Amino acid sequence: MNQSAEVICVGTELLLGEVLNSNAQFLGQQLAELGIPHFYQTVVGDNPTRLKRVLAIACKRASLLIFTGGLGPTPDDLTTETLADFFDAPLIEQPEILADIEHKFAHRGGASPNNRKQALIPAGAKILPNPIGSAPGIIWQPYPNLTLLTFPGVPVEMQQMWQQTAIPYLRTQGWGQEIIYSRVLRFWGIAESALALKVAPLLALENPTVAPYTNQGEARLRISIRAASAQVAQEQIAPVEAQIRQLTGLDCYGADQQTLASVVGQLLQVQAETLAVAESCTGGGLGAMITAVPGSSSYFRGGIIAYDNQIKASALKVVQADLLQQGAVSATVAKQMAAGVQMQMGSTWGLSLTGVAGPGGGTESKPVGLVYLGLAKAGAAAESFEYRFSPQRGREWIRHLSACTALDQLRRKLIF
Amino acid sequence: MNQSAEVICVGTELLLGEVLNSNAQFLGQQLAELGIPHFYQTVVGDNPTRLKRVLAIACKRASLLIFTGGLGPTPDDLTTETLADFFDAPLIEQPEILADIEHKFAHRGGASPNNRKQALIPAGAKILPNPIGSAPGIIWQPYPNLTLLTFPGVPVEMQQMWQQTAIPYLRTQGWGQEIIYSRVLRFWGIAESALALKVAPLLALENPTVAPYTNQGEARLRISIRAASAQVAQEQIAPVEAQIRQLTGLDCYGADQQTLASVVGQLLQVQAETLAVAESCTGGGLGAMITAVPGSSSYFRGGIIAYDNQIKASALKVVQADLLQQGAVSATVAKQMAAGVQMQMGSTWGLSLTGVAGPGGGTESKPVGLVYLGLAKAGAAAESFEYRFSPQRGREWIRHLSACTALDQLRRKLIF
Repeated sequence: MNQSAEVICVGTELLLGEVLNSNAQFLGQQLAELGIPHFYQTVVGDNPTRLKRVLAIACKRASLLIFTGGLGPTPDDLTTETLADFFDAPLIEQPEILADIEHKFAHRGGASPNNRKQALIPAGAKILPNPIGSAPGIIWQPYPNLTLLTFPGVPVEMQQMWQQTAIPYLRTQGWGQEIIYSRVLRFWGIAESALALKVAPLLALENPTVAPYTNQGEARLRISIRAASAQVAQEQIAPVEAQIRQLTGLDCYGADQQTLASVVGQLLQVQAETLAVAESCTGGGLGAMITAVPGSSSYFRGGIIAYDNQIKASALKVVQADLLQQGAVSATVAKQMAAGVQMQMGSTWGLSLTGVAGPGGGTESKPVGLVYLGLAKAGAAAESFEYRFSPQRGREWIRHLSACTALDQLRRKLIF
Repeated sequence: MNQSAEVICVGTELLLGEVLNSNAQFLGQQLAELGIPHFYQTVVGDNPTRLKRVLAIACKRASLLIFTGGLGPTPDDLTTETLADFFDAPLIEQPEILADIEHKFAHRGGASPNNRKQALIPAGAKILPNPIGSAPGIIWQPYPNLTLLTFPGVPVEMQQMWQQTAIPYLRTQGWGQEIIYSRVLRFWGIAESALALKVAPLLALENPTVAPYTNQGEARLRISIRAASAQVAQEQIAPVEAQIRQLTGLDCYGADQQTLASVVGQLLQVQAETLAVAESCTGGGLGAMITAVPGSSSYFRGGIIAYDNQIKASALKVVQADLLQQGAVSATVAKQMAAGVQMQMGSTWGLSLTGVAGPGGGTESKPVGLVYLGLAKAGAAAESFEYRFSPQRGREWIRHLSACTALDQLRRKLIF
């Protein structure tokens, strides 16, 4: 029997692509942090026969099976029944689950009859409590060296149940004693293949390993090591990280949970400086990225979404003649937008974005993907930067790259 | 042999949860649209032995295997080699792939030696061209009634290759003749369980089927039918949809690709009205949601991100005394923000959001999750709405619900 975990996500909505499988991502991260080996993930629909086939395979290759989905109140939620059937255990109604559901629905006029089936669990299984929703999960060892954990598909419920009950339980069962420690270095302004070449000798390392990948337009390097303690792991990762940082210089903007917005925020805080933004093509997305960082109110003053050209003139004092002659998507207008918002909001820095996000609106001289970034500092002349993003990846992609690139440009300025 | 497809995503970064598996979602949607049955998805790491085990299982339960990932230039990209090895075919260098890679890298100083291995494909396989990146995929029938398609893990490359080459190829092979037609009805302001009760009798239907689920805080109903033509499917879905809409009234805001923002946009366009936003806790997220809709410039004038209280006073003319006495998170300030931005931007409507997004900053009287929405129409007194979102789901969740709720509130106003 393989001492490893397998994640099994149940839901026709996953197969149909109506829902993004963020539960698999969350569980992957958690298992990695706990050092629990995890080699396969399976998605299967709300179909008892096929779920049983998946079970038959998974029991042979893993000893910890983690299920998400299929615990809801509606008739197509069949995970618990199917597990009970597969392992030939009767379903028993649990009064404490029923009481908990009644309690949760009290202010909404009581539980619905549909909720009643959520109180059934297989004989021998324990309740995995759900502090938020109506669907509890189960912890079940149908036979020695096989543990099943079930969670609802709603991410926030699953995550709390995992953290509050599943992790402590797994530790008592001897899982998660050895840690896989991973550190992810994050880059902006360099492609994955160029990054891989720069750090080529390190990619052959075996302990720790170094692996490149790309996510959301951002190249990353993952340094991983299996160790008995976090301290040992950190000691072995540190010199490799130092070497990578030396090879890649400013392109490496941060690590692990850091984002471009959080790094820019830290730099602004250290320098006691403030920021304001003027957005056209991103329509608020740059501000949203900046304010995703808790505590950003200490350095982010606000912004002006100047989607309409009139607003660029009235709210940001962009010169009408320049709007007419250069066009809204131009270096001149970007500079005036940045300087305008910096002055209006009395911030140290002003950042602006104006571009053609598409899919319509492109011309030969100003194609979809053309974006100007303006950067103004109080008391200095504003600068502008021109980008030509690939139009093939669509409107939201161009907006995403624009906002990230603006933050990265400010980051580089703030470092010098 | 089962005439169905299986999706196999290769990548240790997926198992470690570093990347969200959006490729599985995309392929699920595509297969559903083409009416190609698809019952399982598997994720496996960059490990040839385990990939071969997955292959052995998948060959038995599906006749179309779709792989993503593991085609990159770096040494841990092993999908092509592993497939060749499993089916005992030699790898052959394709001069046309090599030439294409050289061409794509010409402006960056030529392909790296790493890229050379991307020109190797198994004997008997055809090239599945990659119009964007360096990694082509393959189309391969290693034996009768088994087709393999491989794609790189980069979503935009995979999607274009799927659309440009894979779909036409699959159609020539007889796939996708019968369509599963799905229509998704989207709701705001009602929970999944309450929705399921309202439409309970319809959940037992068999042709079409009706299934409830939740995504991103939004309850949905999927009506699905397998039919030989879209027209037949639509004729059978229409009466069920009409019945659902009658049972659920205004809570049903749209269907399929519609979003709260696109529906609000359509209503504004029809009524020749315009919108501006004033954002505090969402920091630009509401504007970003509105401008995610192509063509939103025809009704969205812009916004003011008033993150700092001073900006609320200076840019939105919120009364200083109210900020001090009522606090920034109050019905009074929300109304003034909405009225302020409506007047500043000369729009028909002004929408505002001010709240405590957390994790810090909550007090007993103003806890994390408390959000005020302001709604102003030119020439009328502004209104406000109070929401108390659960703090357990975190900062981004509260911001997301706030922006959606603001759009939904405006939608309901626009309908009457």
